Amino acid sequence: MSEEKVWTAALLVIGDEILSGRTEDKNIAQVARWLNLQGIRLQEVRVVPDVEEAIVAAVNVLRPAYDYVITTGGIGPTHDDITVDSIAAAFGVPVITDPEARAILEDYYRDRGVPVTEARLRMARVPQGAELIPNPTSGAPGVKMSNVYILAGVPNIAAAMLQGLEGKLQGGRPVTSITVTAHAAESEVAALLKQVQDDHPGVAVGSYPFYRDGGFGADFVVRSDDEGLANTCADDLLERLKAAGVEVIEQR
Amino acid sequence: MSEEKVWTAALLVIGDEILSGRTEDKNIAQVARWLNLQGIRLQEVRVVPDVEEAIVAAVNVLRPAYDYVITTGGIGPTHDDITVDSIAAAFGVPVITDPEARAILEDYYRDRGVPVTEARLRMARVPQGAELIPNPTSGAPGVKMSNVYILAGVPNIAAAMLQGLEGKLQGGRPVTSITVTAHAAESEVAALLKQVQDDHPGVAVGSYPFYRDGGFGADFVVRSDDEGLANTCADDLLERLKAAGVEVIEQR
Repeated sequence: MSEEKVWTAALLVIGDEILSGRTEDKNIAQVARWLNLQGIRLQEVRVVPDVEEAIVAAVNVLRPAYDYVITTGGIGPTHDDITVDSIAAAFGVPVITDPEARAILEDYYRDRGVPVTEARLRMARVPQGAELIPNPTSGAPGVKMSNVYILAGVPNIAAAMLQGLEGKLQGGRPVTSITVTAHAAESEVAALLKQVQDDHPGVAVGSYPFYRDGGFGADFVVRSDDEGLANTCADDLLERLKAAGVEVIEQR
Repeated sequence: MSEEKVWTAALLVIGDEILSGRTEDKNIAQVARWLNLQGIRLQEVRVVPDVEEAIVAAVNVLRPAYDYVITTGGIGPTHDDITVDSIAAAFGVPVITDPEARAILEDYYRDRGVPVTEARLRMARVPQGAELIPNPTSGAPGVKMSNVYILAGVPNIAAAMLQGLEGKLQGGRPVTSITVTAHAAESEVAALLKQVQDDHPGVAVGSYPFYRDGGFGADFVVRSDDEGLANTCADDLLERLKAAGVEVIEQR
C-alpha cells in the first residue's frame, strides 16, 4: 500500500441533451479512462442542465474538493453555450476575448475559406485569467481556469482536447485493473470474493454480472494502484475459483 | 406557458465500474427518456463510487431537492453491493429482510432449480419502512424508500424495474421535443437561433452540431411542455432557416 498522494478529479457534464435522454453521454467513460492513464482517479461525476446557477453551484462545490475538475459541453457558438460565462461567474471574474484563441480561430477558418463571424469568435471567449488547452486538430482550443479544464461536448473534439492535455496534469500511479471472467452466477461465489478482498488489503475486488449466449457469468475485477498486489490477488482469486469448480473463461 | 407544477427527479448512478471507465453507463439515457414519458424532468445526475459516505451524502442532498430520486447499481449479492445499506444509513433506519422480497426470490430460484443461498437472500434486504417495486421479469424486486427508487445497475434489469414503475409516479405534462436537422455549421445560424428562442417564450431551442458523411450539420431541438408552442416554434424555425438559404434535411 502506498503512502503517496492520490490525485483526484471530478467530471461535470453540462447539457440539457444528456438530461433529456436525447444524447447518450460518451464523455464519462472516455474521460475516466484518460484520467486513469494519467494516474488520476475520477471520484465523482455530475450532469447539470444548461443553466448558469446550476453550473456555478456545481463548479464551486467540486473545485475545492478535487485536484482537478473537467467539464464537457456548452462551449460552442450558440446561445445555449453558456459554460465559459458560468465558469467565469463561478470564479467571480469577467469574460474576455483571448487574443491567442482569436488568432487560432481566425487561422482555422481562413484555412477553410469560411468567414470569421461574431458567433464563431464567441469560441475565443474565456474567463479572465484562463489559459488555453491546445487542440491538436487545430480547432477551437479548450480552456484551463485554475484547476478547471473546460472541454467540448462532442466526444471526438473532447478527445482531441484530452490529447492536447496529455502528460500535463500531475498524477500518481495509474490503477492496475485485472479482469477474471467466469461462468458463474455471482451469488454463488459471493463469499469467496469477499474472502479474497479481505485477504488482500490495498486491492478492491468488484463483481459485474452479465447474461450472454444463454448463460450467466460475471467479470470479477481486481484493482489496485500497486501492480504487484493486483497480480498476486488476481492469481489467488483464479486459484480459489478453480478450486471451487468455477469455469474461468478468460483473464486479462 | 403553464402554471402547473413541474415534477423533477435526480438520478444517482452508483458504481466504481462507471468511474473507472470500465463500463459505459447506459442508465442515464434510459432513465431520462423514461422519466420524460412520465412527465418528470431529470434535472441532475450524479455518479458516485461504491463508498457508503459518498452515497449517503448524495442521497441526503438530492432527496429533499427533487420530487424523486432514482438510484442505479449496487444491489446485487456481492460484498461490493452496498446501496441498500447506504440508503438505510441515509434515512437513519436499520436494514431488514423483507418477507415478500424473500418469498419472491425463493420462488424465482426454486423455479430455476437453483439453491437459495445466503448471498442470494442478500437481495431481499431493504431499509426498514421500504416498499417493493415489482419486477415484471420476476427476478429481484426494486425498492422504494420514501421518494428514493432503488434500481439495478444492469441496464436490462433496470429497464424491467422501470416497467414495474410505469404509471406509478405522479408527473406533469411530458416535454414535446422536435428536431430540425440541417446542413449548416451552427455558427452560421447562431443569431437566427437566438432570435427564434427569444420570440417564443416557454420554448427552449438547443443546437447540437455533428460532422457526418464529410459535411457539417446540426440538430436544432425545440423543447416545450406545451405541444402547441413547440410546434409553432419549430414551424417558425424551419421557415427562417429556409429563408436564410439553409438546407434542411429532415424534421421529426
